Amino acid sequence: MQLKEYMDSIKCLVEGRLDELLPEAPDSPEAVLYRAMRYSVLGGGKRLRAIIFLATCDLFGLKQELYLDFACALEMLQTYSLIHDDLPAMDNDDYRRGQLTCHKVFGEAQAILAGDALLTQAFNLMLSLDDEVDRGLLCQAARQTAWLLGLGGMVRGQAADMALTGQDPDLPLLQYIHYHKTGAFFQAAIKSGAIFGQALPREMEALCAYSERIGLLFQVVDDILDLAGDEQVLGKPPGSDKRNSKITYPSLIGLEKARKLAEKTAEEAKAALEIFGSKVWFFNELPAYLVKRSFGVAAKVDDLPLKNFF
Amino acid sequence: MQLKEYMDSIKCLVEGRLDELLPEAPDSPEAVLYRAMRYSVLGGGKRLRAIIFLATCDLFGLKQELYLDFACALEMLQTYSLIHDDLPAMDNDDYRRGQLTCHKVFGEAQAILAGDALLTQAFNLMLSLDDEVDRGLLCQAARQTAWLLGLGGMVRGQAADMALTGQDPDLPLLQYIHYHKTGAFFQAAIKSGAIFGQALPREMEALCAYSERIGLLFQVVDDILDLAGDEQVLGKPPGSDKRNSKITYPSLIGLEKARKLAEKTAEEAKAALEIFGSKVWFFNELPAYLVKRSFGVAAKVDDLPLKNFF
Repeated sequence: MQLKEYMDSIKCLVEGRLDELLPEAPDSPEAVLYRAMRYSVLGGGKRLRAIIFLATCDLFGLKQELYLDFACALEMLQTYSLIHDDLPAMDNDDYRRGQLTCHKVFGEAQAILAGDALLTQAFNLMLSLDDEVDRGLLCQAARQTAWLLGLGGMVRGQAADMALTGQDPDLPLLQYIHYHKTGAFFQAAIKSGAIFGQALPREMEALCAYSERIGLLFQVVDDILDLAGDEQVLGKPPGSDKRNSKITYPSLIGLEKARKLAEKTAEEAKAALEIFGSKVWFFNELPAYLVKRSFGVAAKVDDLPLKNFF
Repeated sequence: MQLKEYMDSIKCLVEGRLDELLPEAPDSPEAVLYRAMRYSVLGGGKRLRAIIFLATCDLFGLKQELYLDFACALEMLQTYSLIHDDLPAMDNDDYRRGQLTCHKVFGEAQAILAGDALLTQAFNLMLSLDDEVDRGLLCQAARQTAWLLGLGGMVRGQAADMALTGQDPDLPLLQYIHYHKTGAFFQAAIKSGAIFGQALPREMEALCAYSERIGLLFQVVDDILDLAGDEQVLGKPPGSDKRNSKITYPSLIGLEKARKLAEKTAEEAKAALEIFGSKVWFFNELPAYLVKRSFGVAAKVDDLPLKNFF
């Protein structure tokens, strides 16, 4: 199967199930909360974390259908983090995935609550697998997801990012922020799949190394896209990082080096999984796919004086 | 043992453990996040949900020490909900538990993140019991807590409350809001203890009925206190509900009837647990303890013209 086909088929499964999982209750007193949740979760997105998680399950021969709700929980967590990140007190973004952000449509209070509800419901959903999968593995996967999405990762990275916005950046600090803010989520997706698949220690180690590279790669590409991406591809006006005085890879090391870093990281990611041989075809092709996202932009930027961007 | 002594001893255990569980990392890039979390979690509070949960464990002959981290997780969840409720976009409160609210001290961004971190870390902490207690029961308790704190309860109630603020109140709607917003958390605490204790169906049913009554009772008392409570007892200036045009029991049915409702509900709570006999002494005494909190206020208000308050 081709990469794009494989990713699309999982995306379709996940989006169909998310549609079922998110209630519509137009006559309830909290109807606006359900609308806000559905609007943000079902309003597009690459579903990359769900896809990576289910591809890992696949790698270990597990039935993807059995783990679909766990994948949907990861997408709920992803959406919660975007809703809260977009709030006026945080990145103050008006657009996301090509549509107005949650708080622009439903107000700040309901946006905060929609994020809280998605975060809480994600754990409810994960733990609902307890009749179908080994409970020890389920506790382990849900527990490490909570750690990597919170104090051990994403929230920690976001807090550091907010605390340091506007300060003089350096590379180790930028890496620290993104290792936690972006990388930890990819780790959670891959490690959860590997936990369910009862990966051997050396397999787990290889997958962790891979997920760290993918997290970095994703962030570098995202920074390049934000710098000068096409609004249609990006789903929001580019330049949000600059407006918010965010440290980014291109602003710190220059666009050319950032592009080189993306290519080098993609190679390292592939190399990390050598022990698996050919059965990791999806994981081998994914890094190049991510790098390609930034190609159009990089080419476009090459024609313009760099001072426009930094 | 006396009620006050019993509650104080559990409170002391819980607060000691919370102090250990919340990291201080003054040199980390996200030091402000840890400070915000510690400030809000350790800045007072009755620890009522942790106490009720551990008292339920006690009722079923379980060792409280083994379930201490689950109790601490409930207190983290309680603090998360207070931090987010106090935000400018929500109730916009400047004081809580006698000190400035989290966002007044650390800014809105870090307050939102402190809430997110506490919510996520609570599930990490709950699931860390997986080596010590039955994993099936743990999944069940954590799962129903996620439901009752989120879409099945607290967040749903808060969303309805925010959506309906300023509208013409009626009693069924007020009951709907508080059943979810306040009551569901007490249900989560008691039901989790009963799940770990492997309560018989009729025991579970009795405890659920009790927890519903306790939730209502707590809310009525809280409304009375907010109306005209002493700032010292309340930890914040009274009148927040009125400023925010919140529907409350006293504003809807009058103070005298609200006080009667509290007393009646306390009796119903006790009656719900008759099947347990004398071993539920804590649960029997708790309702009267809660009602007493509102006595001083009610007496004070009786001397004043009611129009001052409605």
